[in-house]
Amino acid sequence: MRVTLLAYTQLVDKGLPEDIASWEGSTDATILPEFAFRVCTDTTERMGEDQGFLENWISQGHETPIEHVQFTFLIEDISRVTSHQLVRHRIASFSQESQRYVSEGSGNVIPESIRMGPEHLRTLYFDAVNRTRQVYDELVRGGIRMEDARYVLTGSSLTRMVVSMNLRSLRNFLRLRLDKSAQWEIREVAQHIYMILNEKAPQAVKDLYPLWLKSV
Amino acid sequence: MRVTLLAYTQLVDKGLPEDIASWEGSTDATILPEFAFRVCTDTTERMGEDQGFLENWISQGHETPIEHVQFTFLIEDISRVTSHQLVRHRIASFSQESQRYVSEGSGNVIPESIRMGPEHLRTLYFDAVNRTRQVYDELVRGGIRMEDARYVLTGSSLTRMVVSMNLRSLRNFLRLRLDKSAQWEIREVAQHIYMILNEKAPQAVKDLYPLWLKSV
Amino acid sequence: MRVTLLAYTQLVDKGLPEDIASWEGSTDATILPEFAFRVCTDTTERMGEDQGFLENWISQGHETPIEHVQFTFLIEDISRVTSHQLVRHRIASFSQESQRYVSEGSGNVIPESIRMGPEHLRTLYFDAVNRTRQVYDELVRGGIRMEDARYVLTGSSLTRMVVSMNLRSLRNFLRLRLDKSAQWEIREVAQHIYMILNEKAPQAVKDLYPLWLKSV
Amino acid sequence: MRVTLLAYTQLVDKGLPEDIASWEGSTDATILPEFAFRVCTDTTERMGEDQGFLENWISQGHETPIEHVQFTFLIEDISRVTSHQLVRHRIASFSQESQRYVSEGSGNVIPESIRMGPEHLRTLYFDAVNRTRQVYDELVRGGIRMEDARYVLTGSSLTRMVVSMNLRSLRNFLRLRLDKSAQWEIREVAQHIYMILNEKAPQAVKDLYPLWLKSV
Repeated sequence: MRVTLLAYTQLVDKGLPEDIASWEGSTDATILPEFAFRVCTDTTERMGEDQGFLENWISQGHETPIEHVQFTFLIEDISRVTSHQLVRHRIASFSQESQRYVSEGSGNVIPESIRMGPEHLRTLYFDAVNRTRQVYDELVRGGIRMEDARYVLTGSSLTRMVVSMNLRSLRNFLRLRLDKSAQWEIREVAQHIYMILNEKAPQAVKDLYPLWLKSV
Repeated sequence: MRVTLLAYTQLVDKGLPEDIASWEGSTDATILPEFAFRVCTDTTERMGEDQGFLENWISQGHETPIEHVQFTFLIEDISRVTSHQLVRHRIASFSQESQRYVSEGSGNVIPESIRMGPEHLRTLYFDAVNRTRQVYDELVRGGIRMEDARYVLTGSSLTRMVVSMNLRSLRNFLRLRLDKSAQWEIREVAQHIYMILNEKAPQAVKDLYPLWLKSV
Repeated sequence: MRVTLLAYTQLVDKGLPEDIASWEGSTDATILPEFAFRVCTDTTERMGEDQGFLENWISQGHETPIEHVQFTFLIEDISRVTSHQLVRHRIASFSQESQRYVSEGSGNVIPESIRMGPEHLRTLYFDAVNRTRQVYDELVRGGIRMEDARYVLTGSSLTRMVVSMNLRSLRNFLRLRLDKSAQWEIREVAQHIYMILNEKAPQAVKDLYPLWLKSV
Repeated sequence: MRVTLLAYTQLVDKGLPEDIASWEGSTDATILPEFAFRVCTDTTERMGEDQGFLENWISQGHETPIEHVQFTFLIEDISRVTSHQLVRHRIASFSQESQRYVSEGSGNVIPESIRMGPEHLRTLYFDAVNRTRQVYDELVRGGIRMEDARYVLTGSSLTRMVVSMNLRSLRNFLRLRLDKSAQWEIREVAQHIYMILNEKAPQAVKDLYPLWLKSV
């Protein structure tokens, strides 16, 4: 699995209103939500990261302003099992590699429990998965369209996708998917995302640190 | 595949405002959107189904009022391939049978192209799919959790789900999924839904008839 | 203010799957979410209202299945101040009487604090509001379009709207708007809605009772 | 009215996958949607702006990938009439100056039809609006809370807000609000936004040029 930050909401270089421009040049993505908060309440001076301004508001349940920041990730080498779970999140945008038009050839996920389990189970798993891939190839060679041939592919098949969520939706995602009730693979996606957000928007995820800690 | 209408937005029996109550007792689900239109424009007399009131508004792009009607379907015996496509629709609510907690045992979809295709391809497909089901059973018997064992199951595995969408989102669904560019299985879901809506809310889907006709 | 239940998601009369049809004929709107829960976990026997099945799931944060039930209300005689707050809820559908096309003539809200306050403030308020209404009439008579004349109308002007939300979004609405930090007028809307839901879907709002109690 | 671009989705400086990093350094915000398209179809070479790659896809109705780019605007000095229309757009995030907590003092919009109209109508309008502002001040001085005093303020009162929408939602906004059926004030908001997008993401709005032209 690989999770790469592709892009996120960044302030423009010039033309910013004076009150936001005068805040010293932070690259913290939370400068925009903080500005939005101040528009609501008509205050202009900035408290800064040290004061935990945003953290305070979030802890009181005021999450609307953090929606202004959206993050875009490239998520690669996850299983179709996990992509099916991922796309259930509705306040998000997805562009997924199409199994209808892209020939399948990129490998499979092996759950830890099987990889580290008894050899005969591991062998059963590998053989069955490999068999489906061979049959897929033969179906396509035999003239069956990829969109139909893929019915024989297993949930372990690798996929990749571009995913965008705003910071509020990401917090919801992390709360649900860092939790130990989440399945290990999507929990791993959540851990990667947490670490990226912890760098780019630390104030917005500080309270989720204990949840992350328990998840790893 | 089976698509069953479970429930939809129906007027209450008593306590309705006089202007809507006086409209003769139609069971047409579009009576509510029509009332909503009239609230916007403050007119109370009703044109009735014959006049194609709602149809007119929809053809002019005014689709907001039909959001007031939501339909709930039970969709059974579709493949995981198709459920993965279905849950990409975001203005919708889904409750899907969990492969994490429900033991897999309900069969598989065979694409028409394979079922009617050359025997050796059909045999390859059946054997591979059956093999994955056997391995799934052996993995579970061997102590692997269902949520991990399912990685070996194919996209053809049957699933069932409860799906709710409002009439506007359903129209968008039908436009995309009745189209010949949609895959045959989700197109079949769309055909079933079209036929149900054609009975329960005819005015709201009349303009989609040519699309449906071409899809079957 | 008047809040009237117009419609909600009700089971169809015939054609239901056996397992749901066999549940004795409850009119409780929560029968559908309970069925949806059971589809997810593949159990069919029903616990019934006494066992608090749905209540239990909700208390554990599983709110997705209650999205399958949508309620539609007619909300009349609220101020434009409050309708502006209402339409901020995004998982909802609104049809509001248009000030662009409907001539304004239906009265104004007087906040309690002003109605019960000192006479000279009350008089100031009434005179100013009445003046704007007269000027509105004169502007329209003078040829100004209603959509422009309305700029002179006050936030106290009455409006009416049809509002639909699913049960999950309604619970979020109630949590925010029954709270004492909400303004009195939208809190009153929330109280009306709570009472309707308490009758039609009691299990789904039972835990909000203390919040409602403090709000009245 | 002032519409200022505050921020938008920008690629990160380092750590980009090779295929996207190798595309020469465009500041065009559409580089990300184009990459997302290519992930779906598994192609990596880039056509570039000249070839109108994105434009082509959009014209075929494939708008999902442009959701990955979100824009954030500061919109100032619009009327409450217009902010009420703006917040009806649901695939968007809003942070609006609160009339509950921020004392009102920033002026009023005068519709062109009134400003350029007969003097006696203009005088009526000014006097009524000014009167409501005076009464507001007296109510607040008299101890009425701002959240109640504001009921006397007119729809012409100025407000400001931070608004974020993704590029797909923005295209929908422009289609509706550049149209001549939209009211002049929100149409003006749309014109400003069009001009900003035309600079930052030209391929994504090129087809809306005729609509913009007719609107000005």
